[in-house]
Amino acid sequence: MAAGTGTAGLHTIRENNLRAVLRTVRALSPCSRAAVATATGLNKTTVSSLVSDLMERGLVRETGQTPQRRVGRPGVLLDLDDRSVAAVGVEVNVDYLSVVAVDLAHRDLVVRHVPLDARSVGAVACAARIATVLREVTGEPVLEGRAVVGVSVAVPGLIDSPTGTVTRAPNLDWRDVPLRDLLRSELAGSALAGATVLVDNDANLGAMAEYRFGSLAGLTDLVYVTGEVGIGAGVLTGGELLRGAAGSAGEIGHLELAADGPECSCGRRGCLEALAGIGAILRAALPDRVADRPLESRDVAALVDLVVERASAGDGPAVAALERAGTWLGRGVATLVNVVNPGAVVVGGYFVPLAPWLLPSCRAAAGAHSFAPEAGGCRVEPSALGMSAASRGGAAVMIHGLDSGALPLP
Amino acid sequence: MAAGTGTAGLHTIRENNLRAVLRTVRALSPCSRAAVATATGLNKTTVSSLVSDLMERGLVRETGQTPQRRVGRPGVLLDLDDRSVAAVGVEVNVDYLSVVAVDLAHRDLVVRHVPLDARSVGAVACAARIATVLREVTGEPVLEGRAVVGVSVAVPGLIDSPTGTVTRAPNLDWRDVPLRDLLRSELAGSALAGATVLVDNDANLGAMAEYRFGSLAGLTDLVYVTGEVGIGAGVLTGGELLRGAAGSAGEIGHLELAADGPECSCGRRGCLEALAGIGAILRAALPDRVADRPLESRDVAALVDLVVERASAGDGPAVAALERAGTWLGRGVATLVNVVNPGAVVVGGYFVPLAPWLLPSCRAAAGAHSFAPEAGGCRVEPSALGMSAASRGGAAVMIHGLDSGALPLP
Repeated sequence: MAAGTGTAGLHTIRENNLRAVLRTVRALSPCSRAAVATATGLNKTTVSSLVSDLMERGLVRETGQTPQRRVGRPGVLLDLDDRSVAAVGVEVNVDYLSVVAVDLAHRDLVVRHVPLDARSVGAVACAARIATVLREVTGEPVLEGRAVVGVSVAVPGLIDSPTGTVTRAPNLDWRDVPLRDLLRSELAGSALAGATVLVDNDANLGAMAEYRFGSLAGLTDLVYVTGEVGIGAGVLTGGELLRGAAGSAGEIGHLELAADGPECSCGRRGCLEALAGIGAILRAALPDRVADRPLESRDVAALVDLVVERASAGDGPAVAALERAGTWLGRGVATLVNVVNPGAVVVGGYFVPLAPWLLPSCRAAAGAHSFAPEAGGCRVEPSALGMSAASRGGAAVMIHGLDSGALPLP
Repeated sequence: MAAGTGTAGLHTIRENNLRAVLRTVRALSPCSRAAVATATGLNKTTVSSLVSDLMERGLVRETGQTPQRRVGRPGVLLDLDDRSVAAVGVEVNVDYLSVVAVDLAHRDLVVRHVPLDARSVGAVACAARIATVLREVTGEPVLEGRAVVGVSVAVPGLIDSPTGTVTRAPNLDWRDVPLRDLLRSELAGSALAGATVLVDNDANLGAMAEYRFGSLAGLTDLVYVTGEVGIGAGVLTGGELLRGAAGSAGEIGHLELAADGPECSCGRRGCLEALAGIGAILRAALPDRVADRPLESRDVAALVDLVVERASAGDGPAVAALERAGTWLGRGVATLVNVVNPGAVVVGGYFVPLAPWLLPSCRAAAGAHSFAPEAGGCRVEPSALGMSAASRGGAAVMIHGLDSGALPLP
């Protein structure tokens, strides 16, 4: 027993050191083995052994300015090996699938946006559709020969992370959907059969993407707000995701802001997303085109384009609807300011093309309804990551897992 | 320059080691030097030197089961020295001062509760009153010969921590009050002239007290809600205070819950504290005793007692007022659940004696208005720390500073 523990301990130390070397190469590349030794505090022999291991695993390669020198001699530079592995992020939302595959350096390999009426097809067919798109994506020539280290799936709802179950996603009409298990059986026999599958909340993964790649990257107290049919928030405090005791933090779409407001998908009235979600905006902005009933999911993107067109032309109902939705959104931002005081709120999804008409009233309301002067310094900005923030964030989490969690076997 | 940096580095290492030894003695006491060496990974000679230093500073002493042995020989046990230092926590609120002095083991030395109409006397006179009470407390025989390592002051408002300035405390009618500087000049020439003075938000310090000493101590995702004339929240996530980008997180008293609600001290309408703060409760529960105007601060405690008396006797207006306030409080809890998803909300201050009538409707509303089923697992419980949660939390932060921050000089 004691011997077993000891062996596990040694194994863990080597794994930790491998990850430390990988992180260091990522931070310093191109860099020499000597530079890695200095940065990590490990001795040169150990670093050489660890680098060889990482090269076998396809994570690090030799490169650099002195190709004529013999391999392994001082002067040879190391870089991330961007040819061997890939990570995939998927977002399933009410009206689309977004899929992004990235390499070890977080560079895009494939980006797909697939319209899908997820609510109508149901959870099982949706998992099958995701699997089909994943097979297509992993069949792309650019992914040939790469090991896919994992697939992360972003869903607008409450997730039980350990089991990958979507416990509640009212806009998809899903309840207790074992998405990870469904996907795993759909992927059986494919190139992805053995890949890690993670399921997480779309706003949480969007926040990770903003923190790593967004226009305010590096801001440690940041909230990402999804602008879809539903509205959710991913809350970063001190650079860490605030998940809460049961993993359900950030459900700002269901803050009840108007006692007699419109009915919400959650069964209550006057929730933020019933007042300022894309469905509410389209109904108010396009009274001639969208009836007062559940939206046909497949039309959302085209209708948002039409709102942009009309608002650009100064159309009264469109501009007024966006201003009103922006005001409610600002009330939601004020709640975030009063409770968590973020340095910035980044709005994503369909809110991005609507931002020019949505954000002025949003910022004004956020200021007016926050207790701290000037909304506690909180900026409200549109995302620069478009519709792929959550899928990109999911892929990034998978790559980050290599630096800090499980490494693929050689 | 390089030599200076090197010296500073060595100094820091020794300070870090001193703190590590102090933390270890706190965790293991009574314990031998050998046990400290094992737990810290430091060698025995180093531990002996560090222990001598801590003994000179009055933080550690020898004790234990073998008093006949010669000092310093193996077998002598170490304990925290609870005779040498003290830390003081003060809370200033609308209608009282609370002062707690504790020893190194967090044991109470002095506990004081002083009625004070802080709003009427103004900030300068209030600082003078705090200084007077502090001189009285530090003059108590039990504090004789002790070094007071610091004074922490809890205030219901927004604090600029680096300068100790209260930027905004509407219930005290304070704005940009340099409380730390005021206190320092009031304390000049006293035994506290050199003591560290920190100013922090009352709810934040209450949350620290709950985390360390409360009935749910150790729960890492916990919110403490102050139940005074104002309502504030101290939010702990993962055992850390969520302060936000500008230090103004947790201002739940100014969540606007009712568009046409009563006027709030902040100038808005329908804020949580205007609906469920003690002033609102007293006005509704005691219509014959409290006129519809600003409350006389000095009467609050007695009036709360009267509400308890009447509610116990089944008095209609009192019971209805508490049930209604509880429902609004539950709406505030639901907002916390939707945004940060705490494992528990602990309500303090005057909410504690009122809890039997306040909390049933509060829990029901929290469940009804949360998106996650069963309020995301969030319990709502009364504090066991009474009116001294914030002052006790402040004293604890000072003692914790010895384990993790500045140590007093020998």
